[in-house]
Amino acid sequence: MFDPVAKLKEYVSHPSVSADPAFAEGMKGARELAGGLLREIGFAVDYVPTAGHPVIVAKRTGDPSWPHVIIYGHYDVQPPDPLELWTTPPFEPVERAGRLYGRGTADNKGPLMAHIAGVGRLLESDPQIPLRITFVIEGEEEIGSKHFKDFLRDHKDRLAGADFVFLSDTGIPNPDQMVITVGLRGMVCFEIELSNARTDLHSGMNGGVLLNPIQGLAELCASLHTPDGRVNIPGFYADVKEVEPWEREQLVKLGLKEKDYAEFLGIERFHTPPGYTPFEAIRFLPTLEFNGFGGGYQGEGTKTVIPSKARVKISCRLVPNQTPERMKEVIFKAIRERAPKGLKLKITDQHDAMPYVVVPPDRSNTPPDQSPVLARAFRATHQAATEIWGREPLYLREGGSVGLIADLKKELNLDAIMLGLFLPQDNLHAPDESFDLAVMHKGIETVQRILHRVARG
Amino acid sequence: MFDPVAKLKEYVSHPSVSADPAFAEGMKGARELAGGLLREIGFAVDYVPTAGHPVIVAKRTGDPSWPHVIIYGHYDVQPPDPLELWTTPPFEPVERAGRLYGRGTADNKGPLMAHIAGVGRLLESDPQIPLRITFVIEGEEEIGSKHFKDFLRDHKDRLAGADFVFLSDTGIPNPDQMVITVGLRGMVCFEIELSNARTDLHSGMNGGVLLNPIQGLAELCASLHTPDGRVNIPGFYADVKEVEPWEREQLVKLGLKEKDYAEFLGIERFHTPPGYTPFEAIRFLPTLEFNGFGGGYQGEGTKTVIPSKARVKISCRLVPNQTPERMKEVIFKAIRERAPKGLKLKITDQHDAMPYVVVPPDRSNTPPDQSPVLARAFRATHQAATEIWGREPLYLREGGSVGLIADLKKELNLDAIMLGLFLPQDNLHAPDESFDLAVMHKGIETVQRILHRVARG
Repeated sequence: MFDPVAKLKEYVSHPSVSADPAFAEGMKGARELAGGLLREIGFAVDYVPTAGHPVIVAKRTGDPSWPHVIIYGHYDVQPPDPLELWTTPPFEPVERAGRLYGRGTADNKGPLMAHIAGVGRLLESDPQIPLRITFVIEGEEEIGSKHFKDFLRDHKDRLAGADFVFLSDTGIPNPDQMVITVGLRGMVCFEIELSNARTDLHSGMNGGVLLNPIQGLAELCASLHTPDGRVNIPGFYADVKEVEPWEREQLVKLGLKEKDYAEFLGIERFHTPPGYTPFEAIRFLPTLEFNGFGGGYQGEGTKTVIPSKARVKISCRLVPNQTPERMKEVIFKAIRERAPKGLKLKITDQHDAMPYVVVPPDRSNTPPDQSPVLARAFRATHQAATEIWGREPLYLREGGSVGLIADLKKELNLDAIMLGLFLPQDNLHAPDESFDLAVMHKGIETVQRILHRVARG
Repeated sequence: MFDPVAKLKEYVSHPSVSADPAFAEGMKGARELAGGLLREIGFAVDYVPTAGHPVIVAKRTGDPSWPHVIIYGHYDVQPPDPLELWTTPPFEPVERAGRLYGRGTADNKGPLMAHIAGVGRLLESDPQIPLRITFVIEGEEEIGSKHFKDFLRDHKDRLAGADFVFLSDTGIPNPDQMVITVGLRGMVCFEIELSNARTDLHSGMNGGVLLNPIQGLAELCASLHTPDGRVNIPGFYADVKEVEPWEREQLVKLGLKEKDYAEFLGIERFHTPPGYTPFEAIRFLPTLEFNGFGGGYQGEGTKTVIPSKARVKISCRLVPNQTPERMKEVIFKAIRERAPKGLKLKITDQHDAMPYVVVPPDRSNTPPDQSPVLARAFRATHQAATEIWGREPLYLREGGSVGLIADLKKELNLDAIMLGLFLPQDNLHAPDESFDLAVMHKGIETVQRILHRVARG
C-alpha cells in the first residue's frame, strides 16, 4: 500500500481553501489526490457536483446483508492568514520532531489519511471482508458545509441503507487518551455592517459632527455580553439542555487542569460564565464570539479618516437543544434594537450548523434506542481504542461544530462514531497547524481494527 | 511660464505617499518636479535632508529691507486606499467637468501649484519686485510633520528674518467665498492594542472561556463617549478656550445650512455635543475619532477564529488652549484605567500637533499686537480676495490640523496667512479626491496680487 506520510505531504501541498475562489486550483488538486488514493485501494470513485465544491463519493459495494459504514471527511482547509506568523509556509509541509506542519495537516487531511490508509490495510489483509464502505469527502466543511444538505437530499440513494457514519474530525487531550466525541456544538455565523456617511471623511474637517461607524459598532458589540462573561441577549440560554451526570463524570476523568490550559492558551485568566469551569463552558454552553472586526485605515502609520462603514464577523456556538433558526431570531432582534439610530444596519446571514448529541451504549442509565450495528460499532471502537491507546476511551462532547453530523442525523437518521485524532497543540484554524505522526499511525491501526470487528465480529 | 494644469497633472502622477516606505520612488518624483518648477521661475533650490523625507527649500533673496515671505506647502499625500472606491486610478489624474481627479490634487498639490504659478507670474510681470520669498515644501505633512520641528531648529538661519508665512492648505465653503483661516485644531494620534492568547484560537474548541480582544477593545472604545456625543474622559474639555463674539458672527455670515451639510455628507442625522451646531463643533470643540479598527479575519466568507489581538487607531483634534501633552495625559490615563483586566494593553503614541489661532487686524475689539508687515499682508489679502472673489473674505477657524503652523509660531514666532483653496466636495483624504480648476486659476491671480501689494504697497 501507499506510504501514508508521503501521501499526506503531497495532499497538504494542495492549497484547498474553500472560502476563497482564488484557491480553485488547490481545491481540484486536493480532490483528485484523495480520489486517486481511494481508486488505488479498490474503490469506485465519483466526483459529485454541487452548487459549490464537488463531493467525492467512493464506494466498496457488496451483499445488502453486510454492514454499511459511511466514512466522512473533508478535503478543504481554513484560510492560512495571517501568513507572517507561520514558521514555514502553510502549503509547503515540513516534518519537525515527529509532527507534520502545514495548513490542513490536522483539520482534516491527516485524520482523513488515517481513515483511507486504515481501510487500505484492512482490504489488503482481508480482501473478502463482508463490509460495505462509502467514503463521502466534501469540500465545504470550513465554509459551513453550505451545499452538503442539498447533496444529501439529491443523492440519498447513494447512501441508502447505511448503518452509521465513521469519522475523525474531533480531538483528544493528549497522545495517550482516545476520546469518542458524543456531542458537537452547532453554529450560526453572520456579519454586521454599520455605515453612515456616503464616503470616508476627513477627520479634521468633519470630526465631531457625526456618529463614527466604528464607534457605533463598538457600542453595539460592547452591549452583547455582561461583565461576568454571559451573552447579554434575552432568550440566549432558554433552550440549553441540562447536562447528564455521566457527562460530568467523564469530564472529571479527563483530568485536565485549568492552570495547564491557561498556560497553553497563553492567557492570564479565564472569562467563563459563573458556575462553569472552562472545560464545561466549552462543551455545555453557547457562545457569541467576534471573529473579525474591520473598519477604516489599518495600514502603516496614520490616516486621519472617519470611515464610512465598519463590519464585524460574529459566530455563535450552539448547544443541544438550541436551533440556528430560533437563535438567529433572538440575536438579530437584539442587534436591530440596539443598533445606533441614524446608522444604516446590514446583517448578512452566513451559515448555520445544528448542534448534535448521541448517547453511546453502556453509558447512560437510560439506554439509548439505537440500531444493533451502531451499538456493535461503538463497542468495537471501545475495544480497539482500549487495546491500542492502552486505556479506556472517554465519551465527551466537544466545543467545535461539524454541521453535517446533524444533517446526516436529520436527513438519513444516521448517528456518528467520532474518533478523536487531533491534539490541542495542533493549532487548528491558526498559524503553524501541525499533526502528530505517531497519533496518525495509531489512528490507522485503530480504524483497521474497528472496521474488522464491525464486519467479522 | 509653464502651464499650471499640465504641470499639476504631472505632479499628481507621482504617488508621494509619505506614510508607506513602498512609495519612496513617488516621493522622489514629486519632490524633484516641484523643485524643478521653482528653479524654472528663478529660485535657488535645495533639498534639505531630515531624519525622514527631505524638505524643499527654494529662495529668492534680496535686500534685507525687503519684506520676506515664507510660502509653505507639502509634496506628500495621504494613502490612496480603499482603491476599489476610486472611479479612476488615484495616481492617473483625469479631468472631468472642470475638476482634476487624483490623490493629492486638493491636498496639497493643486493649492501649492497655485502658489508656485502665482509667484511665477508675479516675477514675470515685475522681475525687480522688492520681495524676498522662501518656499518651504515638506514631505511629511500627512504623517504629522514628524521631522519639521527638527528642520526648523536645525535650519533657523535659512528662515531668519521672515515676516510671515503664506500658505493654502485650508478650505472654502463654495467657489465664490474666500475664507482666511485664522485657527486650526491640533491633534494627537495613537494606537491601542489589546491582546490575550498567544495565538489566534479555534472559536469552537476554545470559544467561551477567554475574553476575546475584539470584545475587550469594543468595550473600551464604547466607554470613550457619552450617548449625547461628548467625549467621556475626565478633563477632556478643561482647557477649551471661550469662543469670541466676532468668530460666531463670521460663522453666521458663512450662511451654511445643516440640511445641506447632512446631504453632502450623506448622513441621516448629526451627532454633536449639546449646545453646538455642527459648524461650531468642527471649529470650537475637541474630538476623539476612531480612524481604524482591525482584528481577526476580515477576508471573504467566514473564519471561526478568536483573534489573539485587536487594534484601534484614534485621533483626537484639539482646540486652543489644549496641548498634546496634557491631553495625552488624561486620555491615556482613562484608557489604562478602563482596559479590561487580563488583557495586555499597548498604547503607541503616533504624532501630535498644537492647535493654533491668530487674530487678523480690524476684526477683534481687542486689536492684536502684530508686526506691520503681517498686518499689511492681512489687508492685502482682504483686498485681493474681495476683488477677485467678488465679496469680502470671511475669517474662520477650521477643523483640520496643520501642525507646522503652530511649530512656526513657536520656533520662529511667525504667524500665518492661510488662503483657503479647497472645497468640501474635493474629498480630501478620501476616494475620488479632486480639485476645482477654476478655483485654482482664481487662486493663482490672488496669490500674485497679494504678494504684489505686500511688496509694492
